[in-house]
Amino acid sequence: MRIGIIGLGVVGSSVAQILQTNQDVIAARAGEEIIPVIGAVRNLHKSRADVTFRLVDDVNVVLNDPTIDTIVELMGGIDEAYVVAQKTLRAGKNLVTANKAMLAYYRYELQEIAGKIPIGFEASVAGGIPIIKALRDGLGANHILEICGILNGTCNFILTNMFLHNMPYATALAKAQELGYAEADPSFDVGGFDAAHKLLILASIAYGIDAKPDSILIEGITDISEDEIAFAREFGYSLKLLAIARKVGNEVELRVHPAFVPLSEMISRVDGVMNGISVVGDCVGETMYYGAGAGGKATASAVISDLIEIARCKSTPMLGFKKSLESGLVLREKDSIRSRYYLRLDVADEAGVLAQVAQILSSENISIRSLLQPSSQKGAKILLSTHLCNEKHIKSAMDKLATLQFVRHAPVMIRIKDSQ
Amino acid sequence: MRIGIIGLGVVGSSVAQILQTNQDVIAARAGEEIIPVIGAVRNLHKSRADVTFRLVDDVNVVLNDPTIDTIVELMGGIDEAYVVAQKTLRAGKNLVTANKAMLAYYRYELQEIAGKIPIGFEASVAGGIPIIKALRDGLGANHILEICGILNGTCNFILTNMFLHNMPYATALAKAQELGYAEADPSFDVGGFDAAHKLLILASIAYGIDAKPDSILIEGITDISEDEIAFAREFGYSLKLLAIARKVGNEVELRVHPAFVPLSEMISRVDGVMNGISVVGDCVGETMYYGAGAGGKATASAVISDLIEIARCKSTPMLGFKKSLESGLVLREKDSIRSRYYLRLDVADEAGVLAQVAQILSSENISIRSLLQPSSQKGAKILLSTHLCNEKHIKSAMDKLATLQFVRHAPVMIRIKDSQ
Repeated sequence: MRIGIIGLGVVGSSVAQILQTNQDVIAARAGEEIIPVIGAVRNLHKSRADVTFRLVDDVNVVLNDPTIDTIVELMGGIDEAYVVAQKTLRAGKNLVTANKAMLAYYRYELQEIAGKIPIGFEASVAGGIPIIKALRDGLGANHILEICGILNGTCNFILTNMFLHNMPYATALAKAQELGYAEADPSFDVGGFDAAHKLLILASIAYGIDAKPDSILIEGITDISEDEIAFAREFGYSLKLLAIARKVGNEVELRVHPAFVPLSEMISRVDGVMNGISVVGDCVGETMYYGAGAGGKATASAVISDLIEIARCKSTPMLGFKKSLESGLVLREKDSIRSRYYLRLDVADEAGVLAQVAQILSSENISIRSLLQPSSQKGAKILLSTHLCNEKHIKSAMDKLATLQFVRHAPVMIRIKDSQ
Repeated sequence: MRIGIIGLGVVGSSVAQILQTNQDVIAARAGEEIIPVIGAVRNLHKSRADVTFRLVDDVNVVLNDPTIDTIVELMGGIDEAYVVAQKTLRAGKNLVTANKAMLAYYRYELQEIAGKIPIGFEASVAGGIPIIKALRDGLGANHILEICGILNGTCNFILTNMFLHNMPYATALAKAQELGYAEADPSFDVGGFDAAHKLLILASIAYGIDAKPDSILIEGITDISEDEIAFAREFGYSLKLLAIARKVGNEVELRVHPAFVPLSEMISRVDGVMNGISVVGDCVGETMYYGAGAGGKATASAVISDLIEIARCKSTPMLGFKKSLESGLVLREKDSIRSRYYLRLDVADEAGVLAQVAQILSSENISIRSLLQPSSQKGAKILLSTHLCNEKHIKSAMDKLATLQFVRHAPVMIRIKDSQ
């Protein structure tokens, strides 16, 4: 198998290096040698110790090389990469990509163009954890009831440090940036968008559903404060950014948001930059997958597993099956999502405040499950959790609460993960 | 795809049932319908609600049916099942089996006979957890440094109850038997043999090594007492029956034994009847897989995932690669295994006892890392943990300790899991 690699950053150079150092096991498993013969880079003058093959700075030279049968796309970007992917498939070459953003938008288009040409994308979700193969192959007998993933290492690192080491959000973010776990502009990670892209890919495999990032519920971690950490400790939760796909009747719920997770669940123990994904199938029950969600070598491990799979000539459809083959599943409206909720209200220290809050919640059919009024010098606070209710009702209650005079700013809401 | 099922016990009837109830997703993923057309059972008169296909009581009728292309072997036993497996392959039919005992002895023989005919055996290890596909496909780029698995739900249930609920061993075993998690004669599970069979299968995929159960280190959980539970609590461990495969230079270490596992490791949280497997690869780092290790539906989920894989016409070699393709790896001698150890000594309450114990350990180059002398009315005890040393030295020290007059019976030894 002769491959061309487009993009030789951290992941691309790890791929090149591992293909060399581990060629014994790779060839044994693939049944043939996997040889990188050409690579495309932006800057030809940069020194690259691990690269022993030919480099060019024109992507089309790689795409048009008749001696290679497989393109590994690691250039990043969305539309530019999509053009490369289309050209690859139209030239009849196999495609391996780690590009989750491109797939979040164009995965069905690519499956359509590919026809019987294999596309590997194990590296696009959760780095080295073979979650795509697990969902598509290992759990193939199951209707998937729920996927619940910690898919963004940056957010998990920040939340873990807030929880375990009492760091304020800003300090934890600064530490993540210092260690290279967060970008200078972290908004794509901390806003939940990266996790959402990965969730959409997993949901396609589990449900065959074609949603785009713009149509699903996405909330990030930027509003989390020490109050939430205190609430979590008090009531036996950890606090995680969860990406959830759940089948509810004929609808699929897709959402990314911070959530309190009971410490009894395995996924609550996934700390630091690690990723973890719980998958519940109707036959298998709950299974869980854990590992490094990022990093050059872990991601390269996934890229090469795709190359091995293609070398073995497997012809699995890219997304496991075609669109919506499971009895016409549709995306659930955001408003219909049901959850338990946590609310934080910063209020003036007056009599009758709690009664008014309770009255508003009750008017939306929301009942309180637990409540905490921590004493503070800065003013009064109400931290509460609700029983199950609708997204629509909690949003409406929050709007009403925000208008109350004694409420100092808009309430903070976090969902509480319930067990299936 | 037309299949014959040999053995319709708990797993077999779950396979039949799920093929019916989940035929929509299964057909979509497999690319064709998977239809059970004939089954072999011992007792034709038993009523079987989920079975709508023809039943016979002669295995050969199934094997010789020219209309079926795939045999699902769920009859159990070793040599009888091996005959069925051979006949299946020699008739050119695909084979799917959940029979770990048969595979522990005959996996390479079967791979040899099969040639290019696919054999699926995902269900033979850890029930519904797709660990075989993860090792063989998802982590294909890696040299596997270590596999560390909780592979026997019976033992894990017993140890969890001893640890979390202070149950004595006998009570926990009785509870397991009552709930159907343990056999009337539990020795195959609690002796570590079931876990050893599964370990041998995983080791073949990871290393291509052909060891038999008789040549590896196997110790069960029958000697565990409340003392060990107390020690674990005191020093921040949980207590698990671990199945470990580890690459050390050119050797592969295979061993099954109870071990103290630091609570900081994910695998220490795998409780009750659940299974969990940590796999460390040289590129991917640590990954972990968690789920139900037994039960009809979870195991059937794995059986059907193999059927789907075969229907898609994948032609992966059964064990990922042929024997010892990774640079001539050999099985490490039991005596050369290195570990940290825990020792329990029941001793007479005399002066100078500890000094003599320390002297014997020191004569074997074993140094003490931590020590506990719990007060007790029944007599004195010494609980200690060592730094890293050789199996050979600890065994020799134990022999010497056993001969001391003040030592009341043979010392109890448990290994302590060290992190890679």
